[in-house]
Amino acid sequence: MKEPEHQYPFLLACQRKPAEYTPIWLMRQAGRYMKEYRALRKKFSFLEMCKKPELAAEVTLQPLQKLNVDAAIIFSDILIPLEPMGVAFEFAKGEGPVFHRPIRGMKDVERLRIIEPEEETSFLMEAIRIVRRELEGKVPLIGFSGAPFTLASYIIEGGHSRNYILTKSMMYQDRPTWNRLMEKLSEVLIRYLDAQIRAGVQAIQVFDSWVGCLSPDDYEEYVLPYSKKVMDALDRSVPMIHFGTSTSALLPLMKKAGGNVIGVDWRVDLDEAWARIGYDVGIQGNLDPVVLFGPVDLIKKEVKRILNQAGGRPGHIFNLGHGILPNTPVEHVSALVEMVHEFSSRKK
Amino acid sequence: MKEPEHQYPFLLACQRKPAEYTPIWLMRQAGRYMKEYRALRKKFSFLEMCKKPELAAEVTLQPLQKLNVDAAIIFSDILIPLEPMGVAFEFAKGEGPVFHRPIRGMKDVERLRIIEPEEETSFLMEAIRIVRRELEGKVPLIGFSGAPFTLASYIIEGGHSRNYILTKSMMYQDRPTWNRLMEKLSEVLIRYLDAQIRAGVQAIQVFDSWVGCLSPDDYEEYVLPYSKKVMDALDRSVPMIHFGTSTSALLPLMKKAGGNVIGVDWRVDLDEAWARIGYDVGIQGNLDPVVLFGPVDLIKKEVKRILNQAGGRPGHIFNLGHGILPNTPVEHVSALVEMVHEFSSRKK
Repeated sequence: MKEPEHQYPFLLACQRKPAEYTPIWLMRQAGRYMKEYRALRKKFSFLEMCKKPELAAEVTLQPLQKLNVDAAIIFSDILIPLEPMGVAFEFAKGEGPVFHRPIRGMKDVERLRIIEPEEETSFLMEAIRIVRRELEGKVPLIGFSGAPFTLASYIIEGGHSRNYILTKSMMYQDRPTWNRLMEKLSEVLIRYLDAQIRAGVQAIQVFDSWVGCLSPDDYEEYVLPYSKKVMDALDRSVPMIHFGTSTSALLPLMKKAGGNVIGVDWRVDLDEAWARIGYDVGIQGNLDPVVLFGPVDLIKKEVKRILNQAGGRPGHIFNLGHGILPNTPVEHVSALVEMVHEFSSRKK
Repeated sequence: MKEPEHQYPFLLACQRKPAEYTPIWLMRQAGRYMKEYRALRKKFSFLEMCKKPELAAEVTLQPLQKLNVDAAIIFSDILIPLEPMGVAFEFAKGEGPVFHRPIRGMKDVERLRIIEPEEETSFLMEAIRIVRRELEGKVPLIGFSGAPFTLASYIIEGGHSRNYILTKSMMYQDRPTWNRLMEKLSEVLIRYLDAQIRAGVQAIQVFDSWVGCLSPDDYEEYVLPYSKKVMDALDRSVPMIHFGTSTSALLPLMKKAGGNVIGVDWRVDLDEAWARIGYDVGIQGNLDPVVLFGPVDLIKKEVKRILNQAGGRPGHIFNLGHGILPNTPVEHVSALVEMVHEFSSRKK
């Protein structure tokens, strides 16, 4: 199946044009739930896999051999641009990313470097080129990064956070430092995403995964201008998906910040979310990843419910509300993809 | 100041009757941010303090000596009814509650006991009686417990959770066990809250703190019937506050489950939340606890914003969107209370 670009169901949905079925891809579709992935992870660390273009390309393509998904997403991490900026991190076992020298004041922000992504993250651009070549036009390739707020929260807190006390305290108590940090992150993300586009990605997802910890007012004041700046600066011919979790009340503001498609989690009904955002943008989501543990009848019921909420309206991209969880049965993921295609088929 | 019960601003607001100012109390108003509390915690563990009536009463009253809050809340923990049910827990340092024998299947559920709260949590009932006596009618006293879902999530996961995989998996994959567990928890909570009412609390808050991890459909199917059963069974003359976090999309369903007042966090604007719930119930909230770290000008701005969103409508109880954080400056908490009273005063 090799289609002209404008006929890929995924890209059609990004433009809210009718497709023959609702396209589906899955956050973390390349990941620990797949034995092929786990086999590689025995030999290489997660960051090694991100940084070796051939490996990253191989992992990107793994799910496409098993699952009939409508897009590939380059294997990488939302935090990748941070290391060349000068904030190194490691993945501590079972703990997520750990930053040993977090960013807490203006001096820390001043030492952050504006990167040259073509050189400093050349491994990613090379992986994108390899994947595009090996995909041979089968499905489009998505590039991505974290959004300014989510990246800021990691480097300020030093890792995952429960209450975001340090992040919000910088916002509230040290506005100049916050602004400077967000400016630098925005500048880097523009360069970084632009480089991915030039390397060949056909869509972009901006992950503002933790932005749901903010009140709508704080989002509008401290975050929206920077997310908007990033998305405004990028090539408009490449569709952008703007994703976050726990964002029920933020959705109209996230739309204002940008994106052809807004990604939502299961905490809000898809129909309600879409009505709130407006039908002049697409919507992506929103199956709870835990549903994939089964039983299959439940997966079926949930797929039907979500497709029904989307109402057959062009512009829905099926996805989970967050990444696939590590112990998810791969046969359930495969069944999900088939169900979405079957139940949404517009062929008679 | 000793007022007839029907004139307490807090109880008036619970009934959506006009009061001379917007009442305020704060979740965890007795807690680690207060040096008097920390002094006691050096001598006693948290659970010891809950279980010694004189200590619990003393801690309950501590904030009333410093803060002009409009209600006291009995010092206790949402998990207290679980231990006599047969699921012991401890508070591991910096980790929150840990259950060493979590509830994972029907056999575990079968061994859970339906408790006699008057005897098995007599320490709490005694603390309530002491506080009522010592308050001498100054402000009303609130009793509380966790809601069935939030308690179920703790005992299934064995503590706090990130993705609630085990909880949701029981819901999805083992409905009989889930139902039996929720029935038992509901039965215990009815007894436990009823005992608190008979001991003298003048309002109840039901904490469904983690219910925001659910989709609206799952909430309606797996949780609402049990929360409703608990709230329906209690003495209607005692107002009930029904609280959760990240509940933006769940609010109309939470109202359906019950409560004279719905508690919301800062992730949703108070005006939008109230409009969604309907003005036939009151609303409580919703300052982000991190705002209390300051600066004071920010606290002032946020108080004005929230009061403005409430629009002077009777039925707003000012509170945080979640508990006071440990290192919060006590003088900021005190300033908050004064501001709420001053800015909302209906006296001329």
